Amino acid sequence: MTSLGHAAPSDFVNPPKLSGARPGTSVLILGSGLAGMVAAYELQKVGYKVQILEYQNRAGGRNFSLRGGDTFEELGGAVQRVGFAQGNYFNPGPWRIPYHHQAVLHYCRTLGVELEPFVQVNHNAYVHSSTAFSGAPQRYRVVDADYSGYVSELLAKSVNQHALDNEISADEREHILQSLKSCGMLDASYAYKKSDLTSMRRGYEKPPGGGLDGPSVTSTPLSRGDIFSSGLWQAISVNSLLNHQTSMFQPVGGMDQIGKAFQKQLQNVINLRCKVTAIHQDDSGVSVTYTDDAHGSATRVAKADYCICTIPLSILSQLDIQVSGSMRAAIAAVPYAPAIKVGLEFNRRFWEEDEQIYGGISFTDLPITQISYPSTKYFSNGKAVLLGAYLWEDVQAFRFAGMTPAERIEASIASGEKIHRQYRKEYSSGVAVAWSRVPWAMGCSSIWSEQRRKDHYKNLCTMDNRIVLAGEHASYIGGWQEGSVLSSINAIEQLHKRASGVG
Amino acid sequence: MTSLGHAAPSDFVNPPKLSGARPGTSVLILGSGLAGMVAAYELQKVGYKVQILEYQNRAGGRNFSLRGGDTFEELGGAVQRVGFAQGNYFNPGPWRIPYHHQAVLHYCRTLGVELEPFVQVNHNAYVHSSTAFSGAPQRYRVVDADYSGYVSELLAKSVNQHALDNEISADEREHILQSLKSCGMLDASYAYKKSDLTSMRRGYEKPPGGGLDGPSVTSTPLSRGDIFSSGLWQAISVNSLLNHQTSMFQPVGGMDQIGKAFQKQLQNVINLRCKVTAIHQDDSGVSVTYTDDAHGSATRVAKADYCICTIPLSILSQLDIQVSGSMRAAIAAVPYAPAIKVGLEFNRRFWEEDEQIYGGISFTDLPITQISYPSTKYFSNGKAVLLGAYLWEDVQAFRFAGMTPAERIEASIASGEKIHRQYRKEYSSGVAVAWSRVPWAMGCSSIWSEQRRKDHYKNLCTMDNRIVLAGEHASYIGGWQEGSVLSSINAIEQLHKRASGVG
Repeated sequence: MTSLGHAAPSDFVNPPKLSGARPGTSVLILGSGLAGMVAAYELQKVGYKVQILEYQNRAGGRNFSLRGGDTFEELGGAVQRVGFAQGNYFNPGPWRIPYHHQAVLHYCRTLGVELEPFVQVNHNAYVHSSTAFSGAPQRYRVVDADYSGYVSELLAKSVNQHALDNEISADEREHILQSLKSCGMLDASYAYKKSDLTSMRRGYEKPPGGGLDGPSVTSTPLSRGDIFSSGLWQAISVNSLLNHQTSMFQPVGGMDQIGKAFQKQLQNVINLRCKVTAIHQDDSGVSVTYTDDAHGSATRVAKADYCICTIPLSILSQLDIQVSGSMRAAIAAVPYAPAIKVGLEFNRRFWEEDEQIYGGISFTDLPITQISYPSTKYFSNGKAVLLGAYLWEDVQAFRFAGMTPAERIEASIASGEKIHRQYRKEYSSGVAVAWSRVPWAMGCSSIWSEQRRKDHYKNLCTMDNRIVLAGEHASYIGGWQEGSVLSSINAIEQLHKRASGVG
Repeated sequence: MTSLGHAAPSDFVNPPKLSGARPGTSVLILGSGLAGMVAAYELQKVGYKVQILEYQNRAGGRNFSLRGGDTFEELGGAVQRVGFAQGNYFNPGPWRIPYHHQAVLHYCRTLGVELEPFVQVNHNAYVHSSTAFSGAPQRYRVVDADYSGYVSELLAKSVNQHALDNEISADEREHILQSLKSCGMLDASYAYKKSDLTSMRRGYEKPPGGGLDGPSVTSTPLSRGDIFSSGLWQAISVNSLLNHQTSMFQPVGGMDQIGKAFQKQLQNVINLRCKVTAIHQDDSGVSVTYTDDAHGSATRVAKADYCICTIPLSILSQLDIQVSGSMRAAIAAVPYAPAIKVGLEFNRRFWEEDEQIYGGISFTDLPITQISYPSTKYFSNGKAVLLGAYLWEDVQAFRFAGMTPAERIEASIASGEKIHRQYRKEYSSGVAVAWSRVPWAMGCSSIWSEQRRKDHYKNLCTMDNRIVLAGEHASYIGGWQEGSVLSSINAIEQLHKRASGVG
């Protein structure tokens, strides 16, 4: 399941120690995403002679941001010209870094990429279901408080009715009751109900104030049946995952700041607009055939002692690559997520100004699945960009991929205005990226099932004579930059072992 | 209970509309904390003639920050010279702003005070009890996951054993079970146990990685009995309160940036070093006697049509103030919290570098109650300041107040090193503020019991002829800046009604 791949921390402590490299050993790296650039950066440091061939006209791969003035062309020919105001950006690919993705954070520190907190959980954002509460969005804090309150109340009832006496000791009984009272905001008789206590968590009808306007009015909990049947507790479950826990971070000014920081270190190494067509190897080295679109589309052959190939499997499976049958089978085995991301720019931060939502995510059962508010420049005036849709791999994602970009944006607005009535009035411009139509990736990231892992993962990751693969697809942290970086580190360790003759 | 006063949002939408003011009506404001400065700022805007008398040599009141080179003298004569490195600061008073404290946020926006997120909940910070888990600190995420898992497991058991059938319908039964599985990370048979699923929330033994190092090792949950008896779930309860929910904010560069921004607007209005001794009124106006320490300690009398007095009750109760017996009784009735705050500077951010804790709070049953890591300049090198102790009003707070500043710091280090072994080695300098010894406040903030509210609150807040009180003590949001600001707005509304003859 993808969600498994989505909840993976990293135990990275330090970059690899590559002692005893034979100076001048050459490595050809295919692709200048994070995996390729980490490999180039680390190998170059210890004396390897590295070159990168990059298909696009920029480095970074899926680490990129779109800004006003950028154009974006997708398979099928649709071209979007981004109309965002100066300073605004949108991250179609990676957009957040969990605190435990220590390898990515290490390179941010090393390369001087400034980071700011990314807000995932926002108690004042919404959870929304079109089939619950007559379609009215609820504040996250309300559902969170009421859900926790009713679960605590029900368990306290069971415990007090001695329904669990064969399970728990008298001692544990007391501790459980005490904890439920505290964490569930239960009153002295273990009830969850309208009170100052519950309002202190779910929010007040009229909040406490000052002077003669001081006294508050408590709020009334939603009904127990409605809370459980609403399904809105799913957001609590999603937010609890390791990959969504605080603290999370984002680069100041766009996720592409990481790619750009690497690129700065690798000016003389990256060759842009090189379209690889064949990857061959023999006992003396590797030779890679490519079309050099930067120089009249000449066909060229690059040679090196070793090759690190970071081309996404969705592309690589279509190329002529000379590796063992088992690696070939692995390359062909892994499908890619047809994720959709839509960035919407609005004339003002109505979510902040009107609704007191500063960063974080609202969740919905509508096709857009979520709205993520900008975790930057809070309280500022002027236009701002939010993530207006993030679809992963369900039928809706395929449906969105089949639309024109303008239709995807319209569909996002049509969903979003069910949550924010200001949507249509304040809309300014948008950009919609369907990853299955991105020419150089043809999918957002790899989807590993348990069976595929068993059959193919080791074959995919084990160096094949002079060729080793890297990228998020060669990791257990699919869809996250951390996977790319850690796969790259493992790949260069394998390569170095082989090249230095230590292994 | 204080904790009630601590969980109070605000319904502030806009500053008061004070139409129809009689130009030239004079208002004398006592105290230049936030309450006093808000009053001066708003009244001046609509044509009132305002003057502030301030006891200290600076404006801001309890809104202040300490920096390297500052000196701080307390009752008893101890003087601390702050030794922090350039750029580092510590907030002895207010230190965080909940998203719903809209009045404070309004003035930050209006006055251009830059804000950054304050991290309250950090899943990778610690919860610690000296009597649980042999005194070993546990990661918040572990206790959070295991607590939620065991509560869900026990309730699922009850539901499946039909113990709650007279309480819930068959329909609700299914919804409850579904939610418990999702939110409690339960397996197909509703068990909470060592698995990839539970590790995805509580953390892995060996996290997923890249390449041949990809496979993860799952972690083992703590035992159910230990989790419930540990009391560590109290941190979950504390973090769930409205006043601790995301998003929270802090001014970039120290909380005193708010006070300083107000001061800039009120240059010609604030008179520093004026020690008020008597506050009198009659039918023609108010007259306030004070010692002008800025000018040879001359005794002076200031006269005005009206007076807004924001002097803390702990001080005001000792002054000669000519108000009704009921307001006098109210002034005398409210005790102040003897809170302690200790700022510790360390040579490096070991909590980030060694333990991957970026902002947020660790909780402990030791006297220091908590350690709050800086929510700013993450990943930076050099010295950094954390909140090393925050005691409120228990016996330990009184004990700390009885110590010398150096002893308070030593006690904080002695507690803190039970959580972070690096504490003593990396310690650089510290400052310890005992609020009961702060000469101009003699306590951190007002403590209202329910009975006191009933007996005295209205009398305290109702304008008495020409004098009206303001400050956090005149609010239902005690101990928070929002209380000061909202009380001030209510006070000027009362004053304006009276002065403009509308009421």
